[in-house]
Amino acid sequence: MLFEELKQRRTIRKYTGEDIPEKLLNELIETACRVSTTGNMQLYSVIITRDKEMKEKLAPAHFNQPTVTSAPVVLTFCADFNRFIKWCDWRDAQQGYDNFQSFFTAAIDALIFAQQFCTVAELAGLGICYLGTTTYNAPQIIETLQLPKYVIPVTTITVGYPSEIPEQVERLPLEAIIHQEKYKDYTREDIDRLYRDKENLAANLKFIKENNKKTLAQVFTDVRYKKEDNEYFSEVFLKIIKEQGFRF
Amino acid sequence: MLFEELKQRRTIRKYTGEDIPEKLLNELIETACRVSTTGNMQLYSVIITRDKEMKEKLAPAHFNQPTVTSAPVVLTFCADFNRFIKWCDWRDAQQGYDNFQSFFTAAIDALIFAQQFCTVAELAGLGICYLGTTTYNAPQIIETLQLPKYVIPVTTITVGYPSEIPEQVERLPLEAIIHQEKYKDYTREDIDRLYRDKENLAANLKFIKENNKKTLAQVFTDVRYKKEDNEYFSEVFLKIIKEQGFRF
Repeated sequence: MLFEELKQRRTIRKYTGEDIPEKLLNELIETACRVSTTGNMQLYSVIITRDKEMKEKLAPAHFNQPTVTSAPVVLTFCADFNRFIKWCDWRDAQQGYDNFQSFFTAAIDALIFAQQFCTVAELAGLGICYLGTTTYNAPQIIETLQLPKYVIPVTTITVGYPSEIPEQVERLPLEAIIHQEKYKDYTREDIDRLYRDKENLAANLKFIKENNKKTLAQVFTDVRYKKEDNEYFSEVFLKIIKEQGFRF
Repeated sequence: MLFEELKQRRTIRKYTGEDIPEKLLNELIETACRVSTTGNMQLYSVIITRDKEMKEKLAPAHFNQPTVTSAPVVLTFCADFNRFIKWCDWRDAQQGYDNFQSFFTAAIDALIFAQQFCTVAELAGLGICYLGTTTYNAPQIIETLQLPKYVIPVTTITVGYPSEIPEQVERLPLEAIIHQEKYKDYTREDIDRLYRDKENLAANLKFIKENNKKTLAQVFTDVRYKKEDNEYFSEVFLKIIKEQGFRF
C-alpha cells in the first residue's frame, strides 16, 4: 500500500547532528502549501528557527523539552491574518477579520498545513515532534519571534534526521473513535472495553506505579494535564488572542 | 520523490457514483490514527455519514454545497473530550478539561487527524473536499449528529472517487509564508510583489468583473467572507463552545 509508511510512523524526538539543507526544507514547505486552505487565503505563516541562540530563547516556552535545542530546525506554525488584512487594507477593501471565527479559521489553515508538512517531511526520511506547549506559552513565543497583530502561534514542530526508532505507542481500537450516522455515547461498559488494552500495557502500568497513582487516568488528571494548569493557560491563551487583535 | 503526489494534489468536489467499501474506509481512518496526538489522548471522534437522508439533513448546515449530498461519504471531525472525561470519571480521576485550552487542544488533535485522513485517502486514489462551514453552523451539526457535551465539530470532509481533475489553483510564492528566525512584517511593496501573480491570473480577473468589484481583495471582504457574517458566526461559535461544556 502507498500509505504503509504512514501506518508505521512515530514521533521522533532525537535527531542526528545532520542539518536540513535550506533547499530541501523549502521544497517540503512548498509541497505542504498544496494542502487545502480556506478560500485559498493561506492564513498561515511558519517561522523557521535554526539559530542556536533563538532555540535557547524558545526553549523555556516549551518547558525546556530537550528536542527544541537539539533539533536542527524548529518550526513555529502561526494562524496569520496579518498578511491578508494588510493586502485588504492596501486594496481598498474593508476587512472584517478581527474576530474569533476568523482566528479559528486561520488556526485550522495553519494546523492542516503543519500536519501536511509533517507528512511530507516524514516521506523524505525526516522525523518530527509536535510541541503542544505552543498554546500554553503563546505570549512568550510571540515576543521571541516578534509576531505582529493578527498572528498567533498554534503549534510547533521540531524536525531532523532520526537518531532513534522508538516503539510505536498504542492507540485506542478504531471502534472507540468512529460513529456511524449519529454519535453513540459511551456506556461504562464501552469505556471499560475500549480502554482495557491501554490500561493493561506494561508501560502504562509502570507509569501508574512511578507516579504513585491508582489509575492511569489519574496520571493524566493529577500529573500530566492538571485542572489548575489548564485553567491558567486558558486565561493566558484567551487574553493573548484578544491582545493580538481578535476581538470577542 | 515520494511526495510527488502530494505536490500534485487538488481539492475534488465531484465524485463518481462508486461507494467506498467499509473495510477500506476503516483502514484509512485507522492509518490516520497514527498521526501525533496530545499525550496520546486521541481527543477526536469522526462521524461517518453514508445515509442519504442524513446527508440531506447535514446539507443546509453546509449552505447546501452539492458535494455534501453527492459524495458517497461525509466525515464530520470533532474535537472530543467526552470520551476522555467519561474515562476519568469512571477511574476515580478528577477531570479539569471543561475549559478553553482543553477545547483548543482537542481541536488541534481533531484537525491534524482530519488532515492525515485526507492524505491517506488521497494516496489510496480518493478525492476530498474540506467544508469550512462546519464552525459556522456547529449548532445545527451538533443537533443533527447528536453530539453530546464536550464534543464540537471542527471540520467536515467529503470523500469519494474523483469524477473530475480540476486545474490546480494558485498559491502565493513560498517567500510570502516563511520567515527566517523572526517574523519580518510585510511592507506595501512586499504585498504588491507577493500578490501580483495572484491578482493578474485570468481566473481572478474574471472573478473581480463578475462580482462588479474593483479589486480581488474586495471579492473576499464584500462577497465571500464578509465582516457581518464573520461577526455573527463568531458569536454563534463561541456560544456553542460554552454550551457544550467548555467554560470561559
